[in-house]
Amino acid sequence: MNDHWSHKSDVVVIGAGLAGLSAARDLVAAGKSVAVLEARDRVGGRLLNHDLGDGQVTEIGGQFVGPTQDRILALAKDVGVETYRAEVPGENVYVHDGRSKRFSGHTPPDLLALPDMGIALARIGKAAARIDPAAPWKAPNALELDGMTYETWLRKAEITGGGVDLVNIFLNSAYGGEARDASALFSLWYVATFGDETHPGTMERGTGTTGGAQDSRFVGGSQLVAQRLAVELDGRIHLSAPVRRVTQDSTGVTVVSDAGEWHAEQVIVAIPPLLASRIVWDPLLPPQQDQLFQRLPFGTLMKCVAVYDKPFWRAEGLSGMGLLRGGSPIREMFDNTPQDGGPGVLMGFLGGKEWRKWAHRPARERRGAVLRSFAQVVGERAFETLDYVEQDWTAEQWTQGGPTSIAAPGVLTSYGEWMGRAFGRVHWAGAEFSPYWNGFMDGAVRSGQDAAAELLAQS
Amino acid sequence: MNDHWSHKSDVVVIGAGLAGLSAARDLVAAGKSVAVLEARDRVGGRLLNHDLGDGQVTEIGGQFVGPTQDRILALAKDVGVETYRAEVPGENVYVHDGRSKRFSGHTPPDLLALPDMGIALARIGKAAARIDPAAPWKAPNALELDGMTYETWLRKAEITGGGVDLVNIFLNSAYGGEARDASALFSLWYVATFGDETHPGTMERGTGTTGGAQDSRFVGGSQLVAQRLAVELDGRIHLSAPVRRVTQDSTGVTVVSDAGEWHAEQVIVAIPPLLASRIVWDPLLPPQQDQLFQRLPFGTLMKCVAVYDKPFWRAEGLSGMGLLRGGSPIREMFDNTPQDGGPGVLMGFLGGKEWRKWAHRPARERRGAVLRSFAQVVGERAFETLDYVEQDWTAEQWTQGGPTSIAAPGVLTSYGEWMGRAFGRVHWAGAEFSPYWNGFMDGAVRSGQDAAAELLAQS
Repeated sequence: MNDHWSHKSDVVVIGAGLAGLSAARDLVAAGKSVAVLEARDRVGGRLLNHDLGDGQVTEIGGQFVGPTQDRILALAKDVGVETYRAEVPGENVYVHDGRSKRFSGHTPPDLLALPDMGIALARIGKAAARIDPAAPWKAPNALELDGMTYETWLRKAEITGGGVDLVNIFLNSAYGGEARDASALFSLWYVATFGDETHPGTMERGTGTTGGAQDSRFVGGSQLVAQRLAVELDGRIHLSAPVRRVTQDSTGVTVVSDAGEWHAEQVIVAIPPLLASRIVWDPLLPPQQDQLFQRLPFGTLMKCVAVYDKPFWRAEGLSGMGLLRGGSPIREMFDNTPQDGGPGVLMGFLGGKEWRKWAHRPARERRGAVLRSFAQVVGERAFETLDYVEQDWTAEQWTQGGPTSIAAPGVLTSYGEWMGRAFGRVHWAGAEFSPYWNGFMDGAVRSGQDAAAELLAQS
Repeated sequence: MNDHWSHKSDVVVIGAGLAGLSAARDLVAAGKSVAVLEARDRVGGRLLNHDLGDGQVTEIGGQFVGPTQDRILALAKDVGVETYRAEVPGENVYVHDGRSKRFSGHTPPDLLALPDMGIALARIGKAAARIDPAAPWKAPNALELDGMTYETWLRKAEITGGGVDLVNIFLNSAYGGEARDASALFSLWYVATFGDETHPGTMERGTGTTGGAQDSRFVGGSQLVAQRLAVELDGRIHLSAPVRRVTQDSTGVTVVSDAGEWHAEQVIVAIPPLLASRIVWDPLLPPQQDQLFQRLPFGTLMKCVAVYDKPFWRAEGLSGMGLLRGGSPIREMFDNTPQDGGPGVLMGFLGGKEWRKWAHRPARERRGAVLRSFAQVVGERAFETLDYVEQDWTAEQWTQGGPTSIAAPGVLTSYGEWMGRAFGRVHWAGAEFSPYWNGFMDGAVRSGQDAAAELLAQS
C-alpha cells in the first residue's frame, strides 16, 4: 500500500450508526485516537431523515423512543436533540377484512380477537419473565422453546386466529418478520429485552405508544442525533469507506477499506452481524461465530410515507394510527407529521410477508395498494398526496434488510453465547448485540458504549 | 486494470466443484470459451481425498453414491472413475447410552425405538410424497409445514424419543443439523429429493447403504472425478482466484478475482448461496434473492478419520458401521477402508449439536472422545491408530459449513421460488440448487448441467 493510503489510530470503529458513533465518543473521551469507517456517504445507519422542504423532516428509518430507553434518551439530551410525544389526539382505526372501525386506547375493537389478545399478552408476559435478557439460552425451558417457531408456541399456548394476527402485526414492524420466522425462545426473549436492568421487559412496553416504545420522537428527526455525534467527532469519520478485509496478529489490526488502509491496536465492529460476516477475515472468524452470523438474517421491512398539505385526519378526530388485519400491504401505520403540525405525513410499515408479496411488484401498483390501506384508516383524501416516498431497507447495500436480525429455531441455544464474544482485537457492537432494546436505537447506543468499556478495560 | 490482468471468455464459471466443472464441461462441448475461477488451490469443492500413502486414499468430504444418482454416475463413467460397493460384510453395531449391541440389516435392535422408527418412516414417506421436488412451496399443506420446525412436526406425528433421535442421527450427516434447525417443509422436501424424475424420493433410499445413498464409493476417491474433469478442462481453470466482485450491464459481465479480472457474456455461479451472498454484486442481487441467500446457512459437520494397519474389525465379523444414540460425539460411522482392503480406515460424522459441543474443545480431548465412540463399535483396538485426521468443513473459508445448506421455517414458502432464478447474465448452480439429491454430488452435477443448458438456450 502507498503511504498516503495508510493511516494509524488506537482504535478503528467500523460503522457510523448509533452504535459505532457512541463507541467512538466514549473512546475519544477516554483519550484514544479513533477512526470511524463508514460504508455509506452519510452517518446514521438505520436512521434516515427525509427532507420535506422548508426545514421540515420526517423519518424513513428508526424513529420512536420511549421510557426505559435511557441510553438513547441521555445521549440525545447530551447532544441537544429534544423529544416530543408522538401520539396524536384522536381515535385510532382498526381495519379487519376491509371494514374500518374507530377505537380509543390500545385495544382494537374486535370481539373475536380481543379475548385471544388478552390471553396472548398474559401468556407471553409470563413466558418472557422467565428469560434473562443477557443469556436467553440459560432459561429453564430454553431448549424446548428453541425447538419450535413462535407460531407453534402461540398455537400451543392456545392463542389462535386473531391473537396470532395481532402479534404478527407487531412483529412486522418490530423485526420485519412473522411468528414463523423466529424461534419461540428468540421472540419471547425479544419481549424480555423491552426494558432495562430495573424494569423487566413487557409486550405492553414494546407495543405501546404513550408510555411504550412508540412514546416519543426526536425534534429534527432521529438521524439528527447521529449527525450531532458526527459533528463532535469532527475529522474522525471517513465516509464512503466500506471495509473489505480485517487482518489481525500479535502486533495489531489492519483494516482495508475502499478509502484506504488503517492500522490500529483494536477494532470495534459496529455493523449488523450479517454484514460483518461478509467482510474478509484473516484469520477467519471462529467457526461458531461465523455460524451464528450466518444464522442472523435480517427481517424485511419497507417504510411507506405519504405527504399531504396538512394532517387533515386530525380535524376529523383521527389520530392517524391504524391497525389493519387481513390482506392489506400496510398492517400498522402512524401519523408521522413533524412536531409543528405541517405538512401532514402518514407512515405505514410494509413488512414481513407483505413485503415478500409486494416488494417486487411495480412501484405504481404498490403505491396504489399502500394508499388504499391509508384510505381505509383516514378516508379517501389519502389519495391526494403531495409526495409519496418508499424506503426499502432490504435494497440498501449497507443494511440488506430491516429493521433488525431474527434468529430461527436452534440458533440461540446452539450459538447465542458467541454473540458478543471478542475475537482477538475485535469487539462487537450494534443494535443486535444488546440485552436491552435489542434492534432499537437504545440497544445500539448501549452496545456501542458497552463495547467501548470492554475495550478500555482491556487496554 | 492493467491489460495483463484482464481476460475475456464467453462464460465465466465461479467455482470448480462438481457443479462448476460439470457446467464448464457442457459449455466447452457446445463450443463456448470458458474460464473457471476457483478460490481454493485445488478443484473439487466439498470433495476432498486424503492421502493414506502408497497410492491409497480415503475421503474426508462427500464420498457416497447410489441408485438414481444417474448424473454423477454417468459423469464418473465418462471420465473413467469406477465405483465399488461400500458396504462391508459383517454385523453393524448399535450403541445406546453406552451399551453396544450387534445387529444385521438396516434396523437397529432397539425394542423401544423400533416402533417409533417404523411409524416415523411411514409418516415421513407419506408426507414427502405430497411434495414436488421442483417446487416444495406449492405442496398442498406447504404453508402449514413451513410454519413449524421438523422437530415440531415429528412430535405432532407422534414420533417420540427414539424415532426423533434416529431421525436426528440421519440429519446430522445428511445436512449437518438437527430436526429443530430446519422447517418441516424443508426436511420433508429433502426426503422427496432422494430420487429422480421416475423414482420418487424416499427416506429409505436416502438413509440406506446397499441400494441407497450410501451404496457405493469411487475407486481412487470421489475427488478424482473432479480432478479428471479438471484435466479435460485443461488450461481453463484458474486456482487461488477467489471472486470478490461481479458487475454486469447491457454489454456484459466483469468478474474481479484475486487472480485478475475477467470479462464475459454470461456467468455461472457454482458456489454455495451463502458464499455467493458474500461477493460484492453490482448491481445488488434482487432483495428477495439476497434475503433467500441470507437464510441458507450451512449445517455443521466434521469428518473424523482414524487409520489402522488393517481393518481389524472385519476379522471379528464387524462391518465397521455403527449407530450411536445418546451422548457420544460420533452418531454415525462407517468403514472407510480403500477398496483393496488396506490400510484400515474408520470414519465418523461429528455433526449438528455434537459439532456445536465439540468443535471448540482442545483437539486432543475431542480425539479421545471420538476414538471412545469408535471403540464402542469395534472394540478397544480403535485406540491403536496409525493416523487420526479431522476435516472440519465449518473452518474452511470457501465452504463455511457442511455438508449443505438448511432452510429454517418460513424460508421456502417466502423465498423458495427465487432459488435458481437467473439474475440478468448470472445463472446459478451448486448442490443447493438441485431438485434431486439436493446437497449431494448428484445434485451438484445436475445443477451444473442444468445451468449450462439454461445459458445455452438463451444464447
